[in-house]
Amino acid sequence: MGGDHGPSVVIPAVAKALATLPASIRVLLHGDEATLAAQIDRCCGLAERVDVRHADRVIGMDEKPAQALRRGKGTSMWNAVEALRAGKATAALSAGNTGALMAISKLILRMSADLERPALVASLPTSRGITTFLDVGANVDCDAERLIEFAVMGEAFHRAAHGVPHPTIGLLNVGSEEMKGHEEVREAHRLLREGGLDLNYKGFVEGDDLTAGVVDVVVTDGFTGNVALKAMEGAARFVTNELKAALTSNLTGALGAALARSSLRRFRDRLSPPPAAPLLGLNGMVLKCHGGAGETDYAHAILVAVELARSNFAGEIETNIRRLPTAMAEQGLRPAEGGV
Amino acid sequence: MGGDHGPSVVIPAVAKALATLPASIRVLLHGDEATLAAQIDRCCGLAERVDVRHADRVIGMDEKPAQALRRGKGTSMWNAVEALRAGKATAALSAGNTGALMAISKLILRMSADLERPALVASLPTSRGITTFLDVGANVDCDAERLIEFAVMGEAFHRAAHGVPHPTIGLLNVGSEEMKGHEEVREAHRLLREGGLDLNYKGFVEGDDLTAGVVDVVVTDGFTGNVALKAMEGAARFVTNELKAALTSNLTGALGAALARSSLRRFRDRLSPPPAAPLLGLNGMVLKCHGGAGETDYAHAILVAVELARSNFAGEIETNIRRLPTAMAEQGLRPAEGGV
Repeated sequence: MGGDHGPSVVIPAVAKALATLPASIRVLLHGDEATLAAQIDRCCGLAERVDVRHADRVIGMDEKPAQALRRGKGTSMWNAVEALRAGKATAALSAGNTGALMAISKLILRMSADLERPALVASLPTSRGITTFLDVGANVDCDAERLIEFAVMGEAFHRAAHGVPHPTIGLLNVGSEEMKGHEEVREAHRLLREGGLDLNYKGFVEGDDLTAGVVDVVVTDGFTGNVALKAMEGAARFVTNELKAALTSNLTGALGAALARSSLRRFRDRLSPPPAAPLLGLNGMVLKCHGGAGETDYAHAILVAVELARSNFAGEIETNIRRLPTAMAEQGLRPAEGGV
Repeated sequence: MGGDHGPSVVIPAVAKALATLPASIRVLLHGDEATLAAQIDRCCGLAERVDVRHADRVIGMDEKPAQALRRGKGTSMWNAVEALRAGKATAALSAGNTGALMAISKLILRMSADLERPALVASLPTSRGITTFLDVGANVDCDAERLIEFAVMGEAFHRAAHGVPHPTIGLLNVGSEEMKGHEEVREAHRLLREGGLDLNYKGFVEGDDLTAGVVDVVVTDGFTGNVALKAMEGAARFVTNELKAALTSNLTGALGAALARSSLRRFRDRLSPPPAAPLLGLNGMVLKCHGGAGETDYAHAILVAVELARSNFAGEIETNIRRLPTAMAEQGLRPAEGGV
């Protein structure tokens, strides 16, 4: 029911994704039964591959996380996460309110092992492959210990999702010199350097290293990560639009563009940001789809969820974080209070 | 003497810039006399349009601001700012250590009126014109009052530099809903809404609004701003490189690209980020050039400095900030302690 477009985009996207997936894969749809049924009827053969679970209510896009927790029970989002906990689903996907999704997931699924807070992870295309970037919006305020947790989770995710045995890690900062950046960033840097965490930590990286692919995993707080991710998406879109305008501004340019069409299409496909970001650190796989996702993006998000469900990233994270409490204790640190 | 390349780039850049400027414009060069003279001799006719001011020492790229203040006297950076204070120059340009440049400028020139800290401002090309973006790296930690000062300075700068009578202002955040973001951001939002500052404030904007040109001025702290700016530069570079690779991957693509060459060149020129960022809020115009700037960029930076020196942005800022203390006092706020 979530996102900017709701079932009118989600249902056709489900049909599109299922068409490319084996028949053994089924989709549970949580939401208003009548609305969903009307959309399902429009997609030939879809009714046989989905199960509708009626929910009276939805979480609004601007509800605060605390509010979502209080009145969330029985909403479509709550039921989707609950189905995951009950073992009726392998992954849950939502294009709804990110803060609410995080809070509800944390409450119902609980954090894996000793982790404190989930993180939202993005996969960026770079000139050398894929950069795993987190947190991109789940935690606005992060202390040094949260950044360490993100490093541990991101490293495990990158290994599981991309098969890299020892992913390299960088900490996002405004400069490579030791004295720069927030207190939290400098403290996290020290811990990653000296904390005996057995991570392949490479030090500070800067904003332009994200797309240069300097390291496999880039760690930052959810405020900076969200702004940087959206700024990059905006810049890529701007550049692509400007290019289009430049190429169609005169006849020779337009002719050139027509000749180069298939190259330009490959170029555009390669740049498309992955439309689904998993929430790391939970006992269960929850993915957040971009609220503005259209049919193609949402279908792509479903395929990403299926692919990740087949990987062992949750197991990798658990193995990694077993080492974390000991390493933290050696540095005289305790887990943070509070959370969502 | 600063930046990644020093005089071997700066001197030819000065020659290049002066070639397009009226003879009445002269350049004061601060640094090691012998090194500078050797480079000047290579540029035909340059000696007549520059004056060399010998400095024994330079500020290192990784010196902390406090250290730069203690031992800065007599360095090339110090002398350049001092020449500005003494009225021997109209603008000072450096590709050196940003933190040191800010600290030295603040000490020698002092802040204009009641402002607390200078801000580094970037001008971003967007689909609708130019977006003024600050702070992009001068202040890593910013409270709500610093963000308000940035809004006041950025608005005045945008009006003076681009002739827009009432520039619109947005505050960078992770979402448009009122409850999102840091405490500092939400407090600044409230003050901009209710503080009686007579600014054309439009509310929260997100990372992708930077290149969409949704507002004229986007305000954020120096950590987020620096990361976002570099992330956008990296994304634009990545997209352009991928495009090049896609177009040259086969013969038809290459033929198309050859036909579209002049369109592609205009496209590239339009995207080039302005190579010099002014430090706003000081009694004098100091500009920071990107450390990695090559000859063309540095020459462009000199032209930007000349152009800004002709505008009245310092006067605009002063007019704006005269209203600030009253508005702040009405909200029960005092200026911040400390600073650099």
